[in-house]
Amino acid sequence: MTDDSKHLYHVDGDLVPADEASVPVTDRGFLYGDAAFETLRAYGGDVFHWGAHADRLAETCDILGMDHGLSDDDLLRRIDETVAANDFADAYVRLSITRGSQPGRLTPAEAVDPRVVVIVEPLPRGGRGSDPVWDGPAAVQTVRTRRISDRALPARAKTHNYLNGILARTELRVTGADEALMLDSEGYVTEGATSNLFFVDDNALCTPSLDGPVLPGITRRVVLDLARQENIPIREQRYTPDDVRGANEAFLTNSTWELRPVETVDGIAIGDGPVTKLLARLYDDYVERRHYGDEK
Amino acid sequence: MTDDSKHLYHVDGDLVPADEASVPVTDRGFLYGDAAFETLRAYGGDVFHWGAHADRLAETCDILGMDHGLSDDDLLRRIDETVAANDFADAYVRLSITRGSQPGRLTPAEAVDPRVVVIVEPLPRGGRGSDPVWDGPAAVQTVRTRRISDRALPARAKTHNYLNGILARTELRVTGADEALMLDSEGYVTEGATSNLFFVDDNALCTPSLDGPVLPGITRRVVLDLARQENIPIREQRYTPDDVRGANEAFLTNSTWELRPVETVDGIAIGDGPVTKLLARLYDDYVERRHYGDEK
Repeated sequence: MTDDSKHLYHVDGDLVPADEASVPVTDRGFLYGDAAFETLRAYGGDVFHWGAHADRLAETCDILGMDHGLSDDDLLRRIDETVAANDFADAYVRLSITRGSQPGRLTPAEAVDPRVVVIVEPLPRGGRGSDPVWDGPAAVQTVRTRRISDRALPARAKTHNYLNGILARTELRVTGADEALMLDSEGYVTEGATSNLFFVDDNALCTPSLDGPVLPGITRRVVLDLARQENIPIREQRYTPDDVRGANEAFLTNSTWELRPVETVDGIAIGDGPVTKLLARLYDDYVERRHYGDEK
Repeated sequence: MTDDSKHLYHVDGDLVPADEASVPVTDRGFLYGDAAFETLRAYGGDVFHWGAHADRLAETCDILGMDHGLSDDDLLRRIDETVAANDFADAYVRLSITRGSQPGRLTPAEAVDPRVVVIVEPLPRGGRGSDPVWDGPAAVQTVRTRRISDRALPARAKTHNYLNGILARTELRVTGADEALMLDSEGYVTEGATSNLFFVDDNALCTPSLDGPVLPGITRRVVLDLARQENIPIREQRYTPDDVRGANEAFLTNSTWELRPVETVDGIAIGDGPVTKLLARLYDDYVERRHYGDEK
């Protein structure tokens, strides 16, 4: 891939050449970041866990008070069409629903003419028998930028308002780290700018609970399910940066990275270990079974 | 106004028909709300207090770590061209600078190819000898959505991440109020979704100080300067909702509304009064002198 002239996105109901895909400057997704989105992966031509992504997207739209009127099937059809039109088997997919263009005011009208954008890029499978999409284990750095509190903008809403994470990542320019560890207003660990955090201490697989401002990642949930099936003890609660710095193993999850080991936190060596390796292997097998194996 | 075919915006260096003005779906302003903006008014063909807006825009870009390399003169030229091309004397202007399109990652590259968008709409002068742009005095309602803390995303950065204000406004659907009064994480008054708040008690003209998460409005500053010149006592500090509900007078300010009286706060009648009326009159005179009078 890719001959640019054949690379297609899906905008407002139509497949369009990627380099011509645009939205009006009056679109509220542009003016205000007033849009919901999901990042997904397609494996072997099909998106991973569409149902879970569709549910989270619906919750985001509910939080935004955006009654877009589009069915999950309609949205999936647009994704499938785009993946197929590009002849991608394994791909990165970004699905956005904006509140469209509305005249004049910040206050959104209840009647919405939504705009749907599907961006797809080729993304090698990774996992079993291939290299992961990330360059190497992550260097994680605690940043000064705090996660927005749920009372201001709920973290479980995945929206085009992403400056909080961008400010966090911008702090890494001086440190050379590649993921920011963000704390809540009280100083407890929440998540990375684009990833959920897991670590392993002497007793359990640990991850910040969803009571705090933490995105309920789809990969996070799959990893927790896999750990439960293996009878790995799990603790979801509030953690301090010191808890993470003192961990035996740590890794990050998101749809693109799947499981990415953490090499260092604030310069302190951590790295992967048996639990991380086992879960990464189980995740690969899970994807394999669902998308490439006999059970597909 | 307006023959739509002659309505022009300014996008990426060119005047384009408003109904064709667009940005690529890969623009970070669309994907993440990764963009700075200013709302301005043009009176008699010239924008009001460009220097103050340019300074605030520069601070926003500095907070975002966006070194766009465009001079204030260049930006003003684009605004002036757009206002002139539409033959608008009195207009609403929205100037946006996005971080442009960058391949792949959330972490912004330091080298930026910015995208500049100027949207203009006709907006009658209002003020002396004409009607204000708002429909009537504002009904203000305290909302549950809290203002994002400065440690998560500084309020003095005016960006395309506007969902915090949109969620606040969405709460007003059930109350019929037209501006949300947003509190900080500790419950102190900050500002409206798109306006600064002033009120008058028995002793002074009061407004939340900029120590909290409050946008340093240009109109806010002009009003404070005008009050100082009239020797009106001023207090800038932290206030509770009860302070506002017990006020003798209250009004909101922004570039579009100028001074807009507050009729009610949480259903409690407040209204304008001599201080509000005096300041509104002084503001009108100030605009008149700068843009329409002999001193222009």
